Amino acid sequence: MSSPSTKPVMLSGIKPTGEIHLGNYFGAMRQLVELAKSGKYQSFIMVADYHALNFIQNAKEMRELSLDLAAAYMAVGLTPQSGSGEDRVVLFKQSDVPAHTELTWIFDTLTTMPYLMRAHAFKDAEAKNHEISVGTFNYPMLMSADILLYDTQLVPVGQDQKQHIEYARDTAEKFNRVFGQEVFTLPKEHIMEEVAIVPGIDGQKMSKSYGNTIPLFASREVITERVMSIVTDSSGERPENVYAIHKLIKSEAELAPIYEEHRGKYKALKEALVEDLDAFIAPLRTTYIELKDSPEKITAALERGAEQAREVTSKKMAEVKKAIGVA
Amino acid sequence: MSSPSTKPVMLSGIKPTGEIHLGNYFGAMRQLVELAKSGKYQSFIMVADYHALNFIQNAKEMRELSLDLAAAYMAVGLTPQSGSGEDRVVLFKQSDVPAHTELTWIFDTLTTMPYLMRAHAFKDAEAKNHEISVGTFNYPMLMSADILLYDTQLVPVGQDQKQHIEYARDTAEKFNRVFGQEVFTLPKEHIMEEVAIVPGIDGQKMSKSYGNTIPLFASREVITERVMSIVTDSSGERPENVYAIHKLIKSEAELAPIYEEHRGKYKALKEALVEDLDAFIAPLRTTYIELKDSPEKITAALERGAEQAREVTSKKMAEVKKAIGVA
Repeated sequence: MSSPSTKPVMLSGIKPTGEIHLGNYFGAMRQLVELAKSGKYQSFIMVADYHALNFIQNAKEMRELSLDLAAAYMAVGLTPQSGSGEDRVVLFKQSDVPAHTELTWIFDTLTTMPYLMRAHAFKDAEAKNHEISVGTFNYPMLMSADILLYDTQLVPVGQDQKQHIEYARDTAEKFNRVFGQEVFTLPKEHIMEEVAIVPGIDGQKMSKSYGNTIPLFASREVITERVMSIVTDSSGERPENVYAIHKLIKSEAELAPIYEEHRGKYKALKEALVEDLDAFIAPLRTTYIELKDSPEKITAALERGAEQAREVTSKKMAEVKKAIGVA
Repeated sequence: MSSPSTKPVMLSGIKPTGEIHLGNYFGAMRQLVELAKSGKYQSFIMVADYHALNFIQNAKEMRELSLDLAAAYMAVGLTPQSGSGEDRVVLFKQSDVPAHTELTWIFDTLTTMPYLMRAHAFKDAEAKNHEISVGTFNYPMLMSADILLYDTQLVPVGQDQKQHIEYARDTAEKFNRVFGQEVFTLPKEHIMEEVAIVPGIDGQKMSKSYGNTIPLFASREVITERVMSIVTDSSGERPENVYAIHKLIKSEAELAPIYEEHRGKYKALKEALVEDLDAFIAPLRTTYIELKDSPEKITAALERGAEQAREVTSKKMAEVKKAIGVA
């Protein structure tokens, strides 16, 4: 047994539902890497495949997207470590740790229907389609289990995900109160610093559903093709949609002379962006491609992470089961 | 590895929510024992503690009631056997087999809200109390998982539980269709032969909630006290409420001379019932008390059963996970 760590736990998860693009990276991943590398936390990073099952019901797609997401996490610097060092990064797949769904059921028995029906995501989904799945309704309980199993203290989220943390806090409090024991630690949200919304090549928010993305691990050819397609308004001095993406990877001070030199020359500015994006993406892409060429490295890392995660969750579940009287 | 059995699987479970009484025994348990002993099935018998968690949120109570129910199962003849013989009886606690809740989540993602809201139990519960738990809503998915994990072919149920088997069948069909593989066997219900409703000492249906029970493992003192309290209508020749209980343990042919001899003598007839009930209960009670005095025997049997159950479910979950693409 390792000695218990005194560093607080940070947990984050992403659903493997599609290609990772610059919007994902600059919207959340980069800040996650910074937190993980700060030395302040033990980091648990989860490929949330059981959440994704509400959307992806095709084995081949699920398998590929999960591997892609794990490779992406590793390529951006969330390098899994073995052992139980205080700064460790534990990268794992949710479905490899059965405690997540077991605790979900336990929380389901504690949670009332009206309480869960107040969830924003449920109300939004139901407004669009009455035939939503039960999993789309009770996923806040799976998310509460994800968080509470690790005594997570910090959950980095966007402003729109605050409610998830509130559900986890409420559920932890309710469990502790009903069973008269402080089994669960109350998590805090960490609202990620609002980066400017990452624009896609059409100027709208970059999103897979708009088809306006630049993939995070794009080849130079794809970068060129996408950047050259950036919609520009020829009336201005500066192609704003080009500048907005450029600003993600270079400071305004660095950009000023370039945009001065090529004032009004949109093609030249796009070429400059291609160069800079390619230089930024190249090392990530190299690692990503290496990993994708050796998927056994990814699965080995995930298996190691799953063992570390199960070590933590089996202890927590032993406490839970004692508290509810099934052990 | 044992060679796969060719005998069909029967599965049954009871929630550990209270004292076992004659109504439970003659209503369901006795027929279950007969099926298990018929040599036609492999029997999986489950203490459904995770279902009970919707009702019992107290560790001491949950622990005691679960042990009581396991002891009751063993005392009435559902004797757990080790090994993997074709006639085996596997007695286990649901919470010892995490596949049940894991598959519940998977089914939650496949099942729509309106479909589950049509469940009788949900509509009844919600009509009484709008604040019901999410677990009271999605327990048909846990029950589907209970059944489908074992390739169960036979589920003995009362007429009022037919819908549960329909949910399990529908869910099996949907999973097989969506993922394009015959992972799950479609279960059949076995509607248990309608025994006359077992009357309580007040003539109403015997039920813990009416406080009119005779406990299955009652001491002679308790039997005497309860039988002497049986409500009788002094206008008749025969105390019908006494006769109705008597008929559970003796044939009408056996009872005819007794009721002839003591025609109109209610006290004497009650005394005859006390004798017969005590003679019937005594051997069950002896085993039950022996088990309760050595709880380690019960927990050892449950642990053995859990291992056998996990051996089956881990194979099934490997198939499931491959089919959905998380393995």
